[in-house]
Amino acid sequence: MSKLVLIRHGQSAWNLANRFTGWIDVDLSDEGVKEAKNAGKLIKEHGLEFDQAYTSVLTRAIKTLHYVLEESDQLWVPEMKTWRLNERHYGGLQGLNKTKTAEKYGKKQVHIWRRSYDVLPPKIDDDSKYSQVHDRRYANLDPHIIPRTENLKVCLARVMPFWEDHIAPDLLAGKNVVIAAHGNSLRALTKYIENISDADIMNLEMKTGEPVVYTFDKKLNVVNKEKLDK
Amino acid sequence: MSKLVLIRHGQSAWNLANRFTGWIDVDLSDEGVKEAKNAGKLIKEHGLEFDQAYTSVLTRAIKTLHYVLEESDQLWVPEMKTWRLNERHYGGLQGLNKTKTAEKYGKKQVHIWRRSYDVLPPKIDDDSKYSQVHDRRYANLDPHIIPRTENLKVCLARVMPFWEDHIAPDLLAGKNVVIAAHGNSLRALTKYIENISDADIMNLEMKTGEPVVYTFDKKLNVVNKEKLDK
Repeated sequence: MSKLVLIRHGQSAWNLANRFTGWIDVDLSDEGVKEAKNAGKLIKEHGLEFDQAYTSVLTRAIKTLHYVLEESDQLWVPEMKTWRLNERHYGGLQGLNKTKTAEKYGKKQVHIWRRSYDVLPPKIDDDSKYSQVHDRRYANLDPHIIPRTENLKVCLARVMPFWEDHIAPDLLAGKNVVIAAHGNSLRALTKYIENISDADIMNLEMKTGEPVVYTFDKKLNVVNKEKLDK
Repeated sequence: MSKLVLIRHGQSAWNLANRFTGWIDVDLSDEGVKEAKNAGKLIKEHGLEFDQAYTSVLTRAIKTLHYVLEESDQLWVPEMKTWRLNERHYGGLQGLNKTKTAEKYGKKQVHIWRRSYDVLPPKIDDDSKYSQVHDRRYANLDPHIIPRTENLKVCLARVMPFWEDHIAPDLLAGKNVVIAAHGNSLRALTKYIENISDADIMNLEMKTGEPVVYTFDKKLNVVNKEKLDK
């Protein structure tokens, strides 16, 4: 029986500033740091020991992972950072204030972009200061596949190869895995693991810094799900 | 031309307490955290951009690496933690106070253990609380090769396969590499890179938190060495 622990990163500076973040590399707020450390303490209290850690290439998730591992005395656990676990790319909305965006496009339209499974926000221009096409961290990624916008459906499609190639093999090998990532990349994993419908998945809200613990049998069926309370 | 940056971890709690540390997992002191952050700022000032990061499986080196990467805005750089970059194992001396050890064995003997290239300190008992044979982080290591004591010669012998299999191939591929590690594992690398004699290497002192930058040509010859001043 192996365990998979999903942790959504703590509050970021832009959660506070009410801006669309997506792939923009915003740091944790002080509250976010607290949440991450608290998640680590919960992990320790529950005696969860990891064999492998995964996170995105975004600072707020990486730092959350590091606080979690440090607080649970296992900073030495192998870790891998991957763009596949990044937050959903928010396209042309990245960097914009959410209220102003609603004023410009209408509340209804913004609600659709935020909450529909398969409607895409407008693409971001490659020369926008909020684009990532020139970011060194994606230099090894085929330039054609660097996202210009994503909905959850597209986000899930690029998360799943990482499940198939890394997470699932680890779990099948009996390893305990921890993932610190983002609201939407974790929604994608949860949708697959719990077989949630396209219609229902957008209503799933993961609390920041609240570890969700799945236990799998040897055929990778979920035999238990538990949230660790703050 | 690729670059290799070596950084010795900042001051640890046991540097302060004057105890032999070796493989014992002691945290950074507040001063050590400052040194690590400062190293990161120097890296940033010098515009050094990394493609790969390596560190040991000991908290003080891992945290040093994380501070360095965070302060230089590249926390996303791939990192790998390996026991091969651990500090020299100090055998039966691990955990002991240095002054008391000198009183027990004589100053001369302790000096030999600390400063000779190939004399081994006494082995540590597997049931000592300062032994690592039951430490989960070494569970995938052949139990017969977990060190019970090391001198620099033995330490170098287990560091070199990591140079051969990871660091050298990265440099040959044109990658810039950063390593946060320990006084003796870095001595081992330095001995090889600079072809320093057995007699001279023990006099080499790397300052904590002072990045040493090597530039290599395509045949892995050193064409430049620079220390980044605090």
